[in-house]
Order: sequence, then C-alpha cells, then structure tokens
Amino acid sequence: MPSNNGPIKLGIVGVGKIVRDQHLPALAKDGDYRLVAAASRHGKVDGIPNFHDIEAMLDAVPELEAVSLCMPPQFRYDAARTALMAKKHVFLEKPPGATVSEVEDLKTLAAANGVSLFASWHSRYAPAVEAARAFLASASIKSAAINWKEDVRRWHPNQEWIWAPGGFGVFDPGINALSIVTHILPAMFITSAVLDFPENRAAPVAAHVTFRTSNGLPVTMELDWLQTGPQSWDILAETDRGNMVLSGGGSKLAIDGKIVHEEPEGEYPMLYRRFAEIVRAGVSDVDLAPLQHVADAFMLGKRNVVEAFFD
Amino acid sequence: MPSNNGPIKLGIVGVGKIVRDQHLPALAKDGDYRLVAAASRHGKVDGIPNFHDIEAMLDAVPELEAVSLCMPPQFRYDAARTALMAKKHVFLEKPPGATVSEVEDLKTLAAANGVSLFASWHSRYAPAVEAARAFLASASIKSAAINWKEDVRRWHPNQEWIWAPGGFGVFDPGINALSIVTHILPAMFITSAVLDFPENRAAPVAAHVTFRTSNGLPVTMELDWLQTGPQSWDILAETDRGNMVLSGGGSKLAIDGKIVHEEPEGEYPMLYRRFAEIVRAGVSDVDLAPLQHVADAFMLGKRNVVEAFFD
Repeated sequence: MPSNNGPIKLGIVGVGKIVRDQHLPALAKDGDYRLVAAASRHGKVDGIPNFHDIEAMLDAVPELEAVSLCMPPQFRYDAARTALMAKKHVFLEKPPGATVSEVEDLKTLAAANGVSLFASWHSRYAPAVEAARAFLASASIKSAAINWKEDVRRWHPNQEWIWAPGGFGVFDPGINALSIVTHILPAMFITSAVLDFPENRAAPVAAHVTFRTSNGLPVTMELDWLQTGPQSWDILAETDRGNMVLSGGGSKLAIDGKIVHEEPEGEYPMLYRRFAEIVRAGVSDVDLAPLQHVADAFMLGKRNVVEAFFD
Repeated sequence: MPSNNGPIKLGIVGVGKIVRDQHLPALAKDGDYRLVAAASRHGKVDGIPNFHDIEAMLDAVPELEAVSLCMPPQFRYDAARTALMAKKHVFLEKPPGATVSEVEDLKTLAAANGVSLFASWHSRYAPAVEAARAFLASASIKSAAINWKEDVRRWHPNQEWIWAPGGFGVFDPGINALSIVTHILPAMFITSAVLDFPENRAAPVAAHVTFRTSNGLPVTMELDWLQTGPQSWDILAETDRGNMVLSGGGSKLAIDGKIVHEEPEGEYPMLYRRFAEIVRAGVSDVDLAPLQHVADAFMLGKRNVVEAFFD
C-alpha cells in the first residue's frame, strides 16, 4: 500500500519507444512518483536497477508500490496479473489488453487485491478535449466524422508486434480517436466496417467504419496508415452551434474556423496525475468502450486484402 | 404493459427456419402467450395477420405486448429499437446483435422505456446443463475442452447471411457452446485464436481457440463446420472427481463414462418460460459474455485462408 504522503515507488515494464518518448519525461518532472526499477527484455532505463522480467523486479525490489506496463498488448495480461497478485497498483498503457474479457478479469483481480487498476487513454487528456466535450454538450449534434490518417513508417517503424494478431494494426492509433469520441459524443455502436489487410500482414492498414449514436446520429471513421505529407488526427462535428473541428489529436479546437482552444499537449503528465489520484482514492479507472469498438469492428467488419506492406 | 394475468400478446419477426423449427412449436403449447401477428420479408405464419415489417405490424396491432426478433443479427438492432421505443418487451434470438455495443445500447433503451429485454441463449437451457454446472461447482477442475463440429450444409443450407460480414460463420453454432461454458465454468478469456476463412467467404468455417480461466486453467475450443457423419457438440472437463462429458449440445451428462443425466431437450419452451418470468418481474436478462468472446476471437485471432466453400 502506498503511503498517502510521499512519492509512489514505481517500476516500469517494457522499455520501448513510448517509455522513452513519454513516460520517462513525464515521470522526471512529477514529484508524485519515484521511479525505482525497470524490467524489459531489450530496453534499459539509466540510473536505476534493471531486470529481465517483472517477476525478477518484484522479487528484488519489494518496496515497489505500483507498476506501469508498456509492453505490447499481447503480453500485458500475464504481467498485470503478476503485479496485481503482488498487491501493486497497475497502470496499463493503451490498449489495455489483447481482449476485452481479459481486462474485465484484471478489474476483478484488482478489486480482490485491494489495489488500483488504470486503463490509460492518453488522447483523452489532450488539451482541447474537455473544451470539445463542453461545446458538444451545449449543442445539438447532426453528425460527426473521425479522420485519423498517419504514416506508420514514421510513427511505428519496424514495430513487428503491431502487425501481429492482437496487435491492432491501424486501430492502434485509431483507438486514440475512439478514446476521445467515447468521451465527447453520446454512446454509439458500429453499423458497418471495412478493414483493409495487407496481403502479408495479420492486422489492417486502413479501416472505414460507420457508427450510429444511441440517439440516431451518423458517425464515420476513416483510419489510414499510409498517409504521407501532412498527418490528420481530426474529429469533426456538424452542430446547430456551428461546425466543430478538434484537430491535432485533440490539441486544438475550432468552431466555424475560429480557434477557441489551443495549448501545448501534456497528455502523459496528466495520465500520471490521474493515476496518483486513483491510487490515493483507492479506486480503479477502467473504461473499455474504445477497446469494445475495436473488437466489434473486427467481428462485424468485412475484410479486404490489399497490397503487401513492407517497412 | 402486459397484464399480470392472461397470456402475453406476442408478435414474431423474421419468419425463417428457426421460427418454424422451434418458436412456433414452443409457443403452440405455451398458455403464457398468444401469438397474434408476424412480420417478415419472406416467410408467413398461418392463421394470424402477417406484415412486411415490424413498423406495419406495430401500427396495425396495437395490443401487442412483446415481440420475438428472429431475423439475422445484422438486422436485429433497428427492429429492437423500434419495438422498445413502442414499449414492447423484446426477445432476441441468438446472437443478440451484430456488435456488443449495440446490445448495450438496447439494454439502456429497454430500461428507459420500462420494458424487458431478453438476450436468449437456447443452449443454456439444454437439459443437462444445470447438472453439469452443479458437478463442476463441486469439483476441482484441471482443464476443459469444447468440441463443436457439425455439417453446415445440413444445418444451415444456403443461409447466405451466416457467411456475410457480421454473420459469425462457424461462431453461429460456436456461440451456443460459449453460452454453456460461460454458465458452467469460471470466468475466462481468450489467449490465442486461429480462424479459417474460406477464400470466397467473409466468415470463418473453422476456429481453434485457447482460453484461460481467471484461476489459470486451460480451456480449448475447436469449431468445425465441415464435419460429416457423426456430429459433435461436446464439452469435456478433467476434474478431481472424474472426467466429465457434456454431450449432445448439453443434453447428456456422463462422469467417467457413466451417464448421470439424460433427458429430451426442451430448450425453446424453457426460453419462453424465462421470458414470461422476466416480463412479469419487470426485469431484463442480457448476458453478453458469449458474444464478447466471439468479438475477442475476431480481434485477437490469426486468419488463415482455406479452400472456397460452396453450398
């Protein structure tokens, strides 16, 4: 159990690109945490003890109070189970697991062991998301569209796991969009989907999805992983109070072309703030709606086979 | 609202094979219901008014209290929404929808309209299922296996919808097995899956799935739709009290080769008894665990392309 004062003693597991780009810089500036150990098959964090796996880390560093699990989703459940059974709080990178059911199981385990589980959705903490949510709550929505188009070679170079079964493919960025829309729009569900699978890959490189909200509004989602040049991470809504564009992955909000909110992103610092908050409150925060939509898209979706993809 | 006495005035929607084989014979013997209308694009029920669609039926027959929705899952949501908004109780054939999220939405709608929603899982009402559940609750389970192997040409001749996106393929029978195991085994989740798609079809003809229960036990599931000769609908468990075989789709239970429970099936009469019970109690009964596993299998599963399938 963490003390209610003093930093949370944290271990980090799965030291790859996202840890170096986001977790370590956020933790370096956060007085709520002390990073005391890391475990990874390949990566290392300078200046702290490093271990090959989470079991070795937990054995060697009993003062650990919490762990951040950043390995690919296909390998997350076992580590999370080990940590929860050892009564450590668990921060799950997104997506929180390879299946919805396994994360439901982790929720049960966290409750049974009296520790907190956090299914983190970093894009929900993008700076203009709350302003977009407030705007949409005040307006009558007519339709919405998600356009999430990026260059996989730039953002996920040679990440083989992302193309493996359970690696999500273009839904790895797409789930960021879903984590925002499930926070700012009414409840919704998929009515049709087409997924484009490269002939040499087990995960889709593009997806064309239509949703309907519970009150009957149409929402479309276009995911594309072969977008070179300008990248698009946009959510658009037509409303009676004007056309909303939430762009830059949630960092900038414009209504009828006029920017009403823009600030530099601080997603990971916000995620760690939220994690400390739930640890101290003794609760979990696990919203599976974004992952559920991905599972539904795979179940309902028509598959197209498209040109092979090579990094 | 139905009266608490007297039969429930029921309409049936989507008059196909399952309605003729199961619903009509069950309803004919059940004093709890009076079948007053049917709606279907193709089929008809003799002796009652027939309509082209649910809207026409609801308009013409205002005394309707409940509807059974038996069309393919891809078309179930719209009809269910229409019925719930008209304050009719809704019986959903299995699978209850094309996505998990849409059925969640229907649950919300049913509650908001003060009517009952029933996600029916007929195999859960197979005669030996409760005996198997009691046996497993009294034993220490070591492992379990599902073998569900049938001849699609015999059971689903020329049913094109079942091969379409959202039609589930071999998971249409497989979800029956899942509806039993999610009732008799501890909570579980998929750890790996391989789905075999015929090169000319949008749904799998076979699946090889491994699960783990929340307490770490291995469960395997083999689904095959090309089994000629004897058909297998078996659930096996190795336990400290002997080897259990629940066969015949839940109709026969044997422990160490000795039959301990066998009786003729009466699944649909039991389903309608349950539906009347929840309508009169003013509650819903919607367990989505079987559908969740199917969605997870599609999301996590590796796809193999196999020989084309022709009816």
